[in-house]
Amino acid sequence: MSKSTVAFLGLGNMGMPMARNLLSAGFVVRAFNRSHKPLETLVGAGAIPAGSPAEAVEAGGVAISMLANDAALEAVALGEHGFAQKLGAGGLHISMSTVAPETSRRLAEAHALHGSSFLAAPVFGRPEAAAAKKLWICQSGAAEAKQRAKLFLDALGQGIHDFGNEPGAANVVKLSGNFLILSAIEALSEALVLAEKHGIERASLAKFLGETIFACPTYQNYARSLAARTFEPAGFKLELGMKDVRLVRDAAETAQAPMPIADLLHARLLAALAKGRGQLDWTAIEKSSAEDAGLGS
Amino acid sequence: MSKSTVAFLGLGNMGMPMARNLLSAGFVVRAFNRSHKPLETLVGAGAIPAGSPAEAVEAGGVAISMLANDAALEAVALGEHGFAQKLGAGGLHISMSTVAPETSRRLAEAHALHGSSFLAAPVFGRPEAAAAKKLWICQSGAAEAKQRAKLFLDALGQGIHDFGNEPGAANVVKLSGNFLILSAIEALSEALVLAEKHGIERASLAKFLGETIFACPTYQNYARSLAARTFEPAGFKLELGMKDVRLVRDAAETAQAPMPIADLLHARLLAALAKGRGQLDWTAIEKSSAEDAGLGS
Amino acid sequence: MSKSTVAFLGLGNMGMPMARNLLSAGFVVRAFNRSHKPLETLVGAGAIPAGSPAEAVEAGGVAISMLANDAALEAVALGEHGFAQKLGAGGLHISMSTVAPETSRRLAEAHALHGSSFLAAPVFGRPEAAAAKKLWICQSGAAEAKQRAKLFLDALGQGIHDFGNEPGAANVVKLSGNFLILSAIEALSEALVLAEKHGIERASLAKFLGETIFACPTYQNYARSLAARTFEPAGFKLELGMKDVRLVRDAAETAQAPMPIADLLHARLLAALAKGRGQLDWTAIEKSSAEDAGLGS
Amino acid sequence: MSKSTVAFLGLGNMGMPMARNLLSAGFVVRAFNRSHKPLETLVGAGAIPAGSPAEAVEAGGVAISMLANDAALEAVALGEHGFAQKLGAGGLHISMSTVAPETSRRLAEAHALHGSSFLAAPVFGRPEAAAAKKLWICQSGAAEAKQRAKLFLDALGQGIHDFGNEPGAANVVKLSGNFLILSAIEALSEALVLAEKHGIERASLAKFLGETIFACPTYQNYARSLAARTFEPAGFKLELGMKDVRLVRDAAETAQAPMPIADLLHARLLAALAKGRGQLDWTAIEKSSAEDAGLGS
Repeated sequence: MSKSTVAFLGLGNMGMPMARNLLSAGFVVRAFNRSHKPLETLVGAGAIPAGSPAEAVEAGGVAISMLANDAALEAVALGEHGFAQKLGAGGLHISMSTVAPETSRRLAEAHALHGSSFLAAPVFGRPEAAAAKKLWICQSGAAEAKQRAKLFLDALGQGIHDFGNEPGAANVVKLSGNFLILSAIEALSEALVLAEKHGIERASLAKFLGETIFACPTYQNYARSLAARTFEPAGFKLELGMKDVRLVRDAAETAQAPMPIADLLHARLLAALAKGRGQLDWTAIEKSSAEDAGLGS
Repeated sequence: MSKSTVAFLGLGNMGMPMARNLLSAGFVVRAFNRSHKPLETLVGAGAIPAGSPAEAVEAGGVAISMLANDAALEAVALGEHGFAQKLGAGGLHISMSTVAPETSRRLAEAHALHGSSFLAAPVFGRPEAAAAKKLWICQSGAAEAKQRAKLFLDALGQGIHDFGNEPGAANVVKLSGNFLILSAIEALSEALVLAEKHGIERASLAKFLGETIFACPTYQNYARSLAARTFEPAGFKLELGMKDVRLVRDAAETAQAPMPIADLLHARLLAALAKGRGQLDWTAIEKSSAEDAGLGS
Repeated sequence: MSKSTVAFLGLGNMGMPMARNLLSAGFVVRAFNRSHKPLETLVGAGAIPAGSPAEAVEAGGVAISMLANDAALEAVALGEHGFAQKLGAGGLHISMSTVAPETSRRLAEAHALHGSSFLAAPVFGRPEAAAAKKLWICQSGAAEAKQRAKLFLDALGQGIHDFGNEPGAANVVKLSGNFLILSAIEALSEALVLAEKHGIERASLAKFLGETIFACPTYQNYARSLAARTFEPAGFKLELGMKDVRLVRDAAETAQAPMPIADLLHARLLAALAKGRGQLDWTAIEKSSAEDAGLGS
Repeated sequence: MSKSTVAFLGLGNMGMPMARNLLSAGFVVRAFNRSHKPLETLVGAGAIPAGSPAEAVEAGGVAISMLANDAALEAVALGEHGFAQKLGAGGLHISMSTVAPETSRRLAEAHALHGSSFLAAPVFGRPEAAAAKKLWICQSGAAEAKQRAKLFLDALGQGIHDFGNEPGAANVVKLSGNFLILSAIEALSEALVLAEKHGIERASLAKFLGETIFACPTYQNYARSLAARTFEPAGFKLELGMKDVRLVRDAAETAQAPMPIADLLHARLLAALAKGRGQLDWTAIEKSSAEDAGLGS
């Protein structure tokens, strides 16, 4: 086990540029991905391919996972050929996927049985941000895990924000952030439809908001694309937004914290899915506001 | 009638610093206010007192109004001793209050009967921003009115944003802005309560959001005060927020544009009023989220 | 002034059959209606026509009003040629329209200035129920007013339900009833769409509910028509439902009692109006549930 | 295997009186229950005790299950010592619990692998109704299963309502019914709070509604208890209501049918749980309406 070796599990839209950054930073990357194509690509960039999650990790080493959902994450860690057992004593699992806090809590316990530690480290940022090392990383877990993870996380993002020892905490922060972004999208949608029906240019309102009371890229970008109603190509697919809002609602139910806006967002997303809009950008929830106001979709 | 004379109607928390800025900029200010105290204060700073709205204006001159609500605005312009008739041919009414678009539409028509023009020019910014000439001004109305108003508006804010000819448009923009701010407050409240119930420090989450995905003062300030739960003294009183959300809902009904978040905000504000929280800051809608999650209020 | 004479104001879908029943019961009916046609019809049935509300009433007599909305009611009672002044000392106004409780409170005060008493007596039932003397009547007001009104109300309905002295109380009950009916329509709509998407026959579910847990005509009839999706001809027009829900929301705001289902119903009705469905039956709010589930409208 | 023998699994509040009715009707009842006490009681009434679900059933026989939730049902049928395998070829499982339609679909497939058939037969009615054979039974499944089940179901309820062949259909109907009842409870709560704040006697309004527009026991009983605000002892515990609304939401998500009232009910129940009201009657969601209106809880 070398200090500069890391196993990377999951080479999707996010995982691929992250793994590349680890290679660029000089790490030895042992990679696994369920489908072969991305794996070959990364091997072309210098990674060592692994035939299974278990094969990717070294005993006592560091594994980074970036997977599509809770089930994929649990399968890679704990399923058949999963890496948890091999990672074993002294190992560290840095889990960067957007998953339920409960999943992190379960994984932390499962790894502890093998003597490994666990760090939840979900990220904010699109694939382009990942490629540019501009991810914002939230972390929670044991102090030693954070210390050891820093070397790797520094190669992936523009800052690490700490949320304490409880493994699920960083996931709650990630889910809260996505909830807040989609809340802003819904509120902007309602405001833009109101404005349009009062004869105001949508683009003027969007520009004004981004220059004054909401002068930050999240609002500027979403207001612009909502004003223009460009829902394809998807920056973040609506069906993935549904996954996240489902996790938000589960976390709310677990914590007994009613979140009426989360319920509204879920209803918007569900209607969009029912109307066949799952592949559009998640801003396409705007179409429901427009349709309910008698505007074309 | 002098080009550098202006009537100013309404010396409340916002109107007073605005009128002072006009004086500082060298304008002759003829002021009216229903209660005497503020009027005396402004006279001490160089204003000319008027015993009625009509007395404040000059025929063919410019009048700026900044009043508490639609009824006060309509009374000052069109009521007994209102200024509309005297303002008469060639006059200009710059209406800066937060009111319904319908009120602007009605006023524009009423002034037109007397040969005056009308400009809706509501503002974003607290009294401190008004004092510092940092208001953001939205305007809508006839082109000539805008040209003439510029001299005065430049003395009041840090920028003028134009929304076309329709008199009510700027009011819709103002209402949309307040709607969006309160939507963000509600979403932040829900997220902070969720985080707290998952054991996360509220202040950490607030700080993170303000440094990353929502790096703008609106979010930074509200997230900080919501995390700390400091609801007094009120920066913007909850009961005034209710006035604005009521106007939003009316504008939505007029335009037949359903706004489910506006309905939720109204319910939150109404519950807060029922619980005697009208004098707290409008962020105190957070208490309902907290209470519904079983936390103390 | 004769004990058996009554002024009847408003010969719409409800007022006409009610006025006929008064004639059938042997009362002398002095009728007023804004448009002439219905008035002629009722005169053909034995009524005495009046050219104005004031002309219809006798000093100290009894007036029954059944009008479309608050504005019409206030105009007929207090407007130009309104009947309030002439009704005068010893008069009684029985107000049977669906209006705001505040309107009843204002009218009660206005009549009191002239020495007349006021009874709010709104009704439940469609025109056919009115024709069949099957209306359910809610009343509130002074005891003497009730005693005197009984003679007339007995000719109009199948029962009088008392809600005390406060003039607005009966209106709140009427609004609550319509709120509850439309709430049931919305809940049935959601359940039927859920069932349909799970492959269940809508009619089977409707039949089951009406035979078991909701064995009353309100549910039986609405469930049947919602299952069949027959939205025309309108039994009760959607745009009239909007009027009532608006009154419910106003009453909720006045009383500081948040009603989230009322907000939802308002959003459903507003969307339906925006889509041009105001002339359909108010059950047509179902179309939004269906559309949101990806079914045809 | 005798035609008059039946295995009964689950002797809770509902299962116990149902099993007793089978004994009274002359059936040989082989009973299983996880905890011993109820089993002993039923054995005292003539039942044959079984040490496991598998022991309770006869090969090719009939098994009736009435369990607390989906997990308990799946454990009893498919878990360790579950009865599915032994029931085997020619067997019939009549599943009467309130569970997800997906659970019925899965069970039907699992039993089919062993040659058994499956009938979903959930019921409406409280324990007293079960004791009095007054349950309303919904069924869905294969025609032969229904024919064979009739003998047993006739001993348990006052009527069987058929919803076709799809095994999950009857569960959707059961969930829809509970959703509609709780929707009515919420709407009644809002109306009663509105009335109270307008000075109306809650009991008068409740009585009126039950005598007129909602003349059926569901409304009469719930309106009466909501008016009186008697939330204990629980007729149906709030925490069980949460289980059902969760199933409703899951069924809505599966079918992509947004149900905004279901979301509202979930929020009400979740708030009530957060406030420690899980053991109260599910009508205790009214407390949130009351609290939001500034009334004591």
